[in-house]
Amino acid sequence: MPNANTDFSLYLVTDAPSRCRLGLLATVEAAIDGGVTLVQYRSTHPLKGAAYAEALALRQLLSSRSIPLIINNHADLALALDADGLHIGQHDLPPPVARRLLGKNKLLGLSINNHTQLAKTDFSLLDYIGIGPIFATQTKPDASPVVGLEHLAALVRQSPLPVVAIGGISSENATATRATGVAGLAVVSAICSAPNPAAAAALLRNR
Amino acid sequence: MPNANTDFSLYLVTDAPSRCRLGLLATVEAAIDGGVTLVQYRSTHPLKGAAYAEALALRQLLSSRSIPLIINNHADLALALDADGLHIGQHDLPPPVARRLLGKNKLLGLSINNHTQLAKTDFSLLDYIGIGPIFATQTKPDASPVVGLEHLAALVRQSPLPVVAIGGISSENATATRATGVAGLAVVSAICSAPNPAAAAALLRNR
Repeated sequence: MPNANTDFSLYLVTDAPSRCRLGLLATVEAAIDGGVTLVQYRSTHPLKGAAYAEALALRQLLSSRSIPLIINNHADLALALDADGLHIGQHDLPPPVARRLLGKNKLLGLSINNHTQLAKTDFSLLDYIGIGPIFATQTKPDASPVVGLEHLAALVRQSPLPVVAIGGISSENATATRATGVAGLAVVSAICSAPNPAAAAALLRNR
Repeated sequence: MPNANTDFSLYLVTDAPSRCRLGLLATVEAAIDGGVTLVQYRSTHPLKGAAYAEALALRQLLSSRSIPLIINNHADLALALDADGLHIGQHDLPPPVARRLLGKNKLLGLSINNHTQLAKTDFSLLDYIGIGPIFATQTKPDASPVVGLEHLAALVRQSPLPVVAIGGISSENATATRATGVAGLAVVSAICSAPNPAAAAALLRNR
């Protein structure tokens, strides 16, 4: 894959702007100052035009900082913004369809919750997988069952691709989560809701 | 435009499968038997994977009947299905972005409610416009103000592109609506909710 050198180590997933104390762009910029290496835009707008406008502003910010942008779910937004990649869940576009739309030179990530999902994954279509929720989280009330660190470590051993852990990651559990062998930690509220997103990111980066 | 010969005369917009008495595919098939000339798939699924699966089945049905498929809003679904076109509203992807994603050989339609929106439209990007709601409708509770036939006729005169009228069209008002000079009538519930979608379509076609 052309993106083999992508740094997944601190992967920020955006929250609703209303839940970012500093607003979306200022939060992301501070988080980059603190060490975030990649940003996934997860739209919370029901209207695609508003999501496009918001993601376009984020795209410009991230390009100026040389930070990759991944779009959650919406392949049309990823294509429209020439984003660096797309992240899909088990109920989004099927991975072969997403890969066909994106072409070979973009990152494609897939969310996985358990061994059954991992076993049926065609890794040749993907660049990384996201595993979660590792811990209980309030960000996605409809999330799948909690994975836990032991199960995460087993899944990481079985994955031929880099794994990003997501769901309830915080400075308290970051060291233990990294010890499972993941390529990165993905966070939403631990950075977006923090009074000081730069400091929160730096804390997660160093642990 | 390569699609200058598209027949917009009876344009079916799909409703939620639960609101189609016969289910989605059987309703569409009957509607084609009755004279529908084009189908727009408007997803009611919150999950894109379910929308993709449903639209793929529709795509296969329509291809076998040589009826064009237009996708509402989701350019990624349109691309994934190699649909014949995309329909966007005022709050979806901007028309220049949608056209860039689609390429030149697909239909692009835009919803317009009033003179102000018509005046700022770049018609060179589009193949047709949808004007509505012409009459009061229950299908879209968040719809724009009712246009009415007099206003519709004025907008049709100003449009250099074919106009499809939508919103509250029924067999009772079809003749009067066609008399405004529109290229076609778009209907949702008048066909989807009908006990006999083929007969409902035939009635709208003949008037």
